[in-house]
Amino acid sequence: MTSVNLEDARRVIAAAEKKATELGQPMNIAVVDSGGNLVAHVRQDGAWIGSVNISINKAWTSKAFDISTKDLGDNSQPTQQFFGIQNTNGGKVAIFAGGIPLVRDGAVVGAVGVSGGSGEQDHSVAEAGAAAL
Amino acid sequence: MTSVNLEDARRVIAAAEKKATELGQPMNIAVVDSGGNLVAHVRQDGAWIGSVNISINKAWTSKAFDISTKDLGDNSQPTQQFFGIQNTNGGKVAIFAGGIPLVRDGAVVGAVGVSGGSGEQDHSVAEAGAAAL
Amino acid sequence: MTSVNLEDARRVIAAAEKKATELGQPMNIAVVDSGGNLVAHVRQDGAWIGSVNISINKAWTSKAFDISTKDLGDNSQPTQQFFGIQNTNGGKVAIFAGGIPLVRDGAVVGAVGVSGGSGEQDHSVAEAGAAAL
Amino acid sequence: MTSVNLEDARRVIAAAEKKATELGQPMNIAVVDSGGNLVAHVRQDGAWIGSVNISINKAWTSKAFDISTKDLGDNSQPTQQFFGIQNTNGGKVAIFAGGIPLVRDGAVVGAVGVSGGSGEQDHSVAEAGAAAL
Repeated sequence: MTSVNLEDARRVIAAAEKKATELGQPMNIAVVDSGGNLVAHVRQDGAWIGSVNISINKAWTSKAFDISTKDLGDNSQPTQQFFGIQNTNGGKVAIFAGGIPLVRDGAVVGAVGVSGGSGEQDHSVAEAGAAAL
Repeated sequence: MTSVNLEDARRVIAAAEKKATELGQPMNIAVVDSGGNLVAHVRQDGAWIGSVNISINKAWTSKAFDISTKDLGDNSQPTQQFFGIQNTNGGKVAIFAGGIPLVRDGAVVGAVGVSGGSGEQDHSVAEAGAAAL
Repeated sequence: MTSVNLEDARRVIAAAEKKATELGQPMNIAVVDSGGNLVAHVRQDGAWIGSVNISINKAWTSKAFDISTKDLGDNSQPTQQFFGIQNTNGGKVAIFAGGIPLVRDGAVVGAVGVSGGSGEQDHSVAEAGAAAL
Repeated sequence: MTSVNLEDARRVIAAAEKKATELGQPMNIAVVDSGGNLVAHVRQDGAWIGSVNISINKAWTSKAFDISTKDLGDNSQPTQQFFGIQNTNGGKVAIFAGGIPLVRDGAVVGAVGVSGGSGEQDHSVAEAGAAAL
C-alpha cells in the first residue's frame, strides 16, 4: 500500500491554493493518505468555517471509495444505486463535488478534498491539486 | 433463537468471496447473527475501505427488518412509505443493494452484507453467500 | 506504508483462535491494516456481543498509536500523561489490555485486537495472534 | 475579533516541526483561530494516525478555555474542580499536555495543538510553535 507523504500533500495543496486564488474564492483544502487518514489541511483566509469538516470528508470519501465525490454524488441521488450511502460511515461520506483521488502509477495513494465555493469551483481546485502530485 | 454460528458465517463468506473473485471486484463481506450482531467480516485485498462499515450495516439492516436492503431501498425513496428510515438507528440502516437475510427452515437466522462494487454486483455476491447457508 | 493483507489477517486470527480455545474462553478477534482499517473479524461461538466493537477498537488503537492497549492503559490512568485519551477519536480509543501492534521488518503493518475474557486472557490471545504474523 | 491567519499558522507550524525534528519524534500539529476553527494541520511522516484528532482537539480546547491543556488537565483529575469536562462538547475537550493558546498583544488569538509523543514532548513542541507567533 503506497501512499502520499507530507511533502506530496504540500505540493498538492500549493497547486490547489494557486487555483483558488486565481478564481478569487478562498478554500479549505485537505489531503488524506492511502488509509484515509489526514496528512495536511489549510483554510485560506476568509474561507468558510463550515467547510473545514467538508474538505476533510471529501478527501476521505474519495479515498474510501476510489472515486471523485462528483461521480459518487451522481450515483447517490434518489433512485440511483448508492442512494443512502451518505448516511453511512458515521456521517463522513460527502456526495457533492470537490473530492478527487490522488493516483500514482495507477494506484490510488490518497485523495484531495476542497470546499469553499460552488461545486464546480471546488472540483476545479481539487483537479489543480491532483494534477500536481 | 436459532442463529448462524461462526462455521456457518465462514461458509457464507467463502461462497461470497468466490463469486466476488469471479466478478473481478474485491468486496467487503459481513455476516450477522439472529441478534444482528457481527459474527465475521473480511475485506478482500484492494476492496474499498469505506465499505467496511457499509457491509456490516447492510447485514445488520437485513436482519433488523428481515428484508434485503435492495427491497428496503425501493421503499425508502422520497415519497415512499419508509423514506427517512436511513436516518434512524444511529446511522446503521443501509438502503441500497447488498444485504440479504439468511434463512434456515423458514426462519431468518442472520444476514449477509456485501459492499465493494455496483449495487448489482454487491447483491449478486450476497446471493451467492446466502445460497451457501 | 506496507500493510498486512487478508491472508496475513487470517493467519493471525487462526493462531489467536487456537489460543482462545486452549484457554476455554471464546473471543472476538479483529485485525486492522496499517491505515487502521478493518481487514477481518471473527466472533467465536459464545463470545460476548459487546466485545465485537471492543476487539475492533483495540486493534484500531494499537495501530493508531503503535502501542499495545495494555501499555497505553498504564499511561492513561488518572494523573498519568495520557489521561483523557480515551475520550478522543470519537470513542474509538481502547485503554485496556488486548490490542497489540503487528510488526514486520521493524515497521508496524497493522494490529490485532482481542476481547472476550479477562485482560490477561485477551492480551495472551492477542500475543499468540501477533506471533503468527 | 483579532485572530491568527493562515500565514501565522504556517509560521507556528514550521517552528513546531523544527522542534519535533530536533526531538526525533514525528508529530501532528494543528492551529485554530480565535473562533476555535481549524486553520491548518500537518502530520509529519511517521506520526501516529490516532493523533490527527487529538492535535486538532488540543488546539480547540486551548482556545475554547484560553488555557494550556496541561493546566486544564491538572484541574480535570478525579476530585478536582473540572473533572468531567472531558465528556463535554461532543468529545472535543483534550485534557492532557500539548495544547497552548496563541497570544498577541495580551489577547488569545488562536491556539496550537500537538500530539505524537510523550506529554512532555508534545508540550515542548507546542511551546516552540507558540513562541513563533
